Amino acid sequence: MKPPSSIIYGVVGIDDLETPAGRVRGVLGGPAVYAALASRLFAPTGIVSVVGRDFSAKHRKALSGIDLSGLCVHRSELTFRWKGRYTGSMDCAETIRTDLNVVASRRPQVPEFYRAPGRYVFLGNADPDTQLEFLSMMRQPRFVALDTMNYWISSKRGRLLEVIARCDALLVNEGEARQLTGEHGLVSAAARLVRMGPSYVIIKKGEHGTLLAGERGNRRSHFFSPSYPVRRVIDPTGAGDSFGGALVGFLASKGKVTESLVRQAIVWAGAAASYTVESFGTSALAGAGRRQVARRYSAFRGLVRF
Amino acid sequence: MKPPSSIIYGVVGIDDLETPAGRVRGVLGGPAVYAALASRLFAPTGIVSVVGRDFSAKHRKALSGIDLSGLCVHRSELTFRWKGRYTGSMDCAETIRTDLNVVASRRPQVPEFYRAPGRYVFLGNADPDTQLEFLSMMRQPRFVALDTMNYWISSKRGRLLEVIARCDALLVNEGEARQLTGEHGLVSAAARLVRMGPSYVIIKKGEHGTLLAGERGNRRSHFFSPSYPVRRVIDPTGAGDSFGGALVGFLASKGKVTESLVRQAIVWAGAAASYTVESFGTSALAGAGRRQVARRYSAFRGLVRF
Repeated sequence: MKPPSSIIYGVVGIDDLETPAGRVRGVLGGPAVYAALASRLFAPTGIVSVVGRDFSAKHRKALSGIDLSGLCVHRSELTFRWKGRYTGSMDCAETIRTDLNVVASRRPQVPEFYRAPGRYVFLGNADPDTQLEFLSMMRQPRFVALDTMNYWISSKRGRLLEVIARCDALLVNEGEARQLTGEHGLVSAAARLVRMGPSYVIIKKGEHGTLLAGERGNRRSHFFSPSYPVRRVIDPTGAGDSFGGALVGFLASKGKVTESLVRQAIVWAGAAASYTVESFGTSALAGAGRRQVARRYSAFRGLVRF
Repeated sequence: MKPPSSIIYGVVGIDDLETPAGRVRGVLGGPAVYAALASRLFAPTGIVSVVGRDFSAKHRKALSGIDLSGLCVHRSELTFRWKGRYTGSMDCAETIRTDLNVVASRRPQVPEFYRAPGRYVFLGNADPDTQLEFLSMMRQPRFVALDTMNYWISSKRGRLLEVIARCDALLVNEGEARQLTGEHGLVSAAARLVRMGPSYVIIKKGEHGTLLAGERGNRRSHFFSPSYPVRRVIDPTGAGDSFGGALVGFLASKGKVTESLVRQAIVWAGAAASYTVESFGTSALAGAGRRQVARRYSAFRGLVRF
């Protein structure tokens, strides 16, 4: 079998979500879901994850078009569940409840044909130990993008630094960039993160857009991309994961990685993530086709033209 | 006499400044000084303000190239003084002491030849009553850019709204945009501000750059510009005023105002302000020539190219 070019590793979950715009229960969620739905807009995509018996046919249907050979169902377990709330500015999620369920006891298995060299990989936020274990099963991936969060930065810093050293692109938000480096200014923080190993450091700044920093020879390079000006944010859940998945999927579709392509990937990723926040859960992202996303990609040129 | 095309109205002061990078005492400062030094890079510029007997020959020399017909010296008074401190991230200034001095008792006088129609005006942060009084003395200015601050938004909201309704461009920071509109999201806040009258709303987001919002017919228009990635911020004092002054000076140099020119003006303004923060007080801005600022202007294209 031909392996998907974009492999998404991470948690698949079932979410209860509450935002100033309303609430939903039992919707498909988790980093791997958002990332895969965004990645599949660009390239053949597979998920490596675990779920339980409550992962329904409806949930599976929502992932149509994504290769699920690496999604293992454990009938004796329940799927990861997260209950979260956003208030006010919706800047950050408040976790009301997390049930690890199947994630606590079962490690994802990587199908043999996924291990083929040359894959484009998204490591969704997870325990750095499991991220490293997953990476050790992949044979010479072409590109690895890593997402993480404050919890791992403080609790497993050493192991996280190992993953960072092995990734090509590190995706962090502003707070994580500061926490990892001790630098308040994001340009300085990004410069330090580049020295930790990744060729590309991508700081996601929410409504302020994205900062890309890289180093080419002795020359530091920067790229700034705004956020798409969404009229009304309904639910920010999964925006960062959609961004990461679209980034990896776009690069996988090109089959190579250059700074110029990474810049384009960031704009595509911003366009994809702008749909994610326009509905609860995955529905707006899942409903957006490549053509719709392409319209927003084009609109970015007008947003920065001078 | 031929009037300067760019007229800067606002406070001229003497500052004591402290930042994590060090401290200085008795340096020239105030919104009108930073704005005028930035404006003169582009167009003949004049200041309308008041100072006292402690405004020295050295201070005057630092304003060389700027028309000072509108800078009135009151020998019986002392110049406005501000003592401020920035700590940590230098996100906002802490005022240690303000002495209004001459500003409390004397209103600036506008030289007759400055009143000529067609001027490009920067209204530096000041009591909205005095801003309105100044505006009433100008005959049909071609373009008015307004700066203000949280203090006036809460204490003189009604009068401030009158000035906002009469300006062409409103310059505010993120906090002020939210305070004026009650909207957290900056795109929504900008939309509301546009409805208050200005053709152009410019939200200054510090290291996150600038958002321009305008309305052309039924169509809302947005422009995002990053901040120039300065290696090390020494002292942020005056960055916003330098930005405003450069904006007005650039447009004055063009002799017309279109959205395309406002976008260019924003990038020029960002380039000028990036020098301001690289030294204490006005020295880096005053030392930067048009050619240096032009180099950074060009660098902005690379920062957003994809």
